[in-house]
Amino acid sequence: MLAEIITIGDEILIGQIVDTNSAWIAQQLNAIGVRVKQISSVSDSKEHILTALSEAKNRANIIIITGGLGPTKDDITKKTIAEYFNVGMVQNQQALDNVAKIFAKYNRPLLEVNIKQAEIPANCEVIVNHNGTAPGMWFNVDGKVYVSMPGVPHEMMYMVEESVIPKLKATFKLPVITHKTILTVGEGESFLAEKIADIEDSLPSHIKLAYLPKLGSVRLRLSAYGENEETLQQEIKLYADQIMMRVGRSVVTDVDVPIEKAILDEMADKGLTLSVAESCTGGYISHLFTQHAGSSQVFLGGAISYSYDLKESMLGVKNETLWSHGAVSEETVTEMVEGALINLKSDYAIAVTGVAGPGGGSDDKPVGTVWIAVANKNKTVARKFTFGKKRIQNIERTAITGMGMLINLLRENS
Amino acid sequence: MLAEIITIGDEILIGQIVDTNSAWIAQQLNAIGVRVKQISSVSDSKEHILTALSEAKNRANIIIITGGLGPTKDDITKKTIAEYFNVGMVQNQQALDNVAKIFAKYNRPLLEVNIKQAEIPANCEVIVNHNGTAPGMWFNVDGKVYVSMPGVPHEMMYMVEESVIPKLKATFKLPVITHKTILTVGEGESFLAEKIADIEDSLPSHIKLAYLPKLGSVRLRLSAYGENEETLQQEIKLYADQIMMRVGRSVVTDVDVPIEKAILDEMADKGLTLSVAESCTGGYISHLFTQHAGSSQVFLGGAISYSYDLKESMLGVKNETLWSHGAVSEETVTEMVEGALINLKSDYAIAVTGVAGPGGGSDDKPVGTVWIAVANKNKTVARKFTFGKKRIQNIERTAITGMGMLINLLRENS
Repeated sequence: MLAEIITIGDEILIGQIVDTNSAWIAQQLNAIGVRVKQISSVSDSKEHILTALSEAKNRANIIIITGGLGPTKDDITKKTIAEYFNVGMVQNQQALDNVAKIFAKYNRPLLEVNIKQAEIPANCEVIVNHNGTAPGMWFNVDGKVYVSMPGVPHEMMYMVEESVIPKLKATFKLPVITHKTILTVGEGESFLAEKIADIEDSLPSHIKLAYLPKLGSVRLRLSAYGENEETLQQEIKLYADQIMMRVGRSVVTDVDVPIEKAILDEMADKGLTLSVAESCTGGYISHLFTQHAGSSQVFLGGAISYSYDLKESMLGVKNETLWSHGAVSEETVTEMVEGALINLKSDYAIAVTGVAGPGGGSDDKPVGTVWIAVANKNKTVARKFTFGKKRIQNIERTAITGMGMLINLLRENS
Repeated sequence: MLAEIITIGDEILIGQIVDTNSAWIAQQLNAIGVRVKQISSVSDSKEHILTALSEAKNRANIIIITGGLGPTKDDITKKTIAEYFNVGMVQNQQALDNVAKIFAKYNRPLLEVNIKQAEIPANCEVIVNHNGTAPGMWFNVDGKVYVSMPGVPHEMMYMVEESVIPKLKATFKLPVITHKTILTVGEGESFLAEKIADIEDSLPSHIKLAYLPKLGSVRLRLSAYGENEETLQQEIKLYADQIMMRVGRSVVTDVDVPIEKAILDEMADKGLTLSVAESCTGGYISHLFTQHAGSSQVFLGGAISYSYDLKESMLGVKNETLWSHGAVSEETVTEMVEGALINLKSDYAIAVTGVAGPGGGSDDKPVGTVWIAVANKNKTVARKFTFGKKRIQNIERTAITGMGMLINLLRENS
């Protein structure tokens, strides 16, 4: 079963927002055995939306549309869809009640533009929006399903989970897709590919292998297509095991989670705690850990010490260390990581200090120079890295590299 | 001048990665007056790529393709483009030298698969990739430009900045597009729309207004299309000024920057410093600030105090406060923000503590309950909020709401 996602809105096309909805929707669809054939972002223009709908209909049976349902004048999706199906608009009582309820809850007067939001194309079924005023719409026309939802992520997400997925399962007999992802850190895509070339060659045609590189890490994703979930999972596991055996110690996990989640799970299993001392990453490492539910079991806290002062007061870095070796040095990062262990009272710690850029570089320590340390009470490992010139990438690369170092230290001890 | 962006790779279609490249490319193209008509993400399939190229060619003069250029077997973009243009492949010396140089730098043996990366379609010009082994490719066929680049963000970004943008400027006579964005916090989309309805109605046809809502904030974006940049900017400014006058104190800034950047700029101008004390946001607020170059002028640091212990030791929250009122309370958040001012020695501070979820809620303090405080040495403001049930959204909403409160406190004092 194939789906297409159409996102409507100039804000995506001018790059003002990143389309995170589509990836999320694709994940939900995949989980019920629906493959996304194409994702298209189109402008707030009637002709363009009509063309996108026609093209999508030729390729897919399920067409998911997001965006363009707000109360404002640039939102034309609803009228355009009505035109596409050649139907009129009707006021829907269920949608109107929902709008009225939301405005009552916030003690706001119901505006004319909001009442208009309860008007929908005559041939659709309403998907109630519990988090906003724009109703979702479900169309089943000539055996194809079209779903139109607001682009506001939390409104759309609730609708997909509560209504769209159950309705799709009830409407179509869905095939099975299974993925297995192996997360590796520290080796490049081509080295991995060379190492497992013969395993890749031996894959049957219904199993595909993809390499997904990201700063400092590569995911190897096996995807199997078929009928029986259990058989597919057994089959895919055989190949995954072969690959992991071959790739060896670069493997972080064979569960499809980000590296920080793999660390949290491993540390939680072992009853270990973690703290961080961040300078150049400015909270990013802490954020990566704490975005995950349950992280508080492992993650105690972090000291974000941007200034010299705070490196001393929060982490106990010595004033003379800072002045004689500089904030970006082996000595400072070592005192930071050991200070985190002591002051933040954790079993393990990560510390980073570097020149994220674009300013602050020198001949001696150019932009991209980063010292990373990991430690437990028995051992401290500090390493210097020279990353690139882009601030955000230096921050991300520092975070993932520090996590790779932490994984290695954790495994040394098990 | 219209462009289309085609991103190739199953990893986007199964939702394993979010396509951040397209938004970034769109921003760069917009800045030189190229409008992106559509963004399409397609699978690693020859037929699908060929169809996408044909459809894009009918709509645009510039077609930017990313992804599918790695050395591994699932990467088929290059051969497919050669087939699209009906040309053969040739080995390119410049690309081969680049690959060899990169491998020499890292002391790695040059593999067969990497040498193959220097093979390119006969009708293209190489765009050198200084950060990776896959060359970029520039095609100019029948007055249309096609550019194919790797999907790895930092490789693609350097190529766009260094080569693609200058070459596009040299190839086409480009029109002008100007945007002006007004960032507002605290009012909903429909209230704003109602307030400025008459201004919106008075806009000439070459100026468009879009509403871009995001958790807790709405951006109002005016876009003008024409020939003369100066005239367009003057014209768009008139309407922006009218809107800002009408919308009043919800306006954060009329520069197209995120709210935290607006705060950094305003505080830097006034010579003020900031620290944060984060519990439920776990480093996210600090990360938002520190991702911006130059943030160290304002942002001194943060205490991420997930545990009770660290709330006491890093921020000086009293043990009895925690035990009698709980970590999520007015008393605790007040001591946190005042502790941040003192211990982190800043002029202003933000503190947050809440139940991000999904666990940790109670009847008294359900998931989504958040206390936020902002303070300077003269005044502390603490407020309670009840957000939703989703962890990531609670984190984001807490961050933006805290920033809105900080903006208000800053403006009270000026």
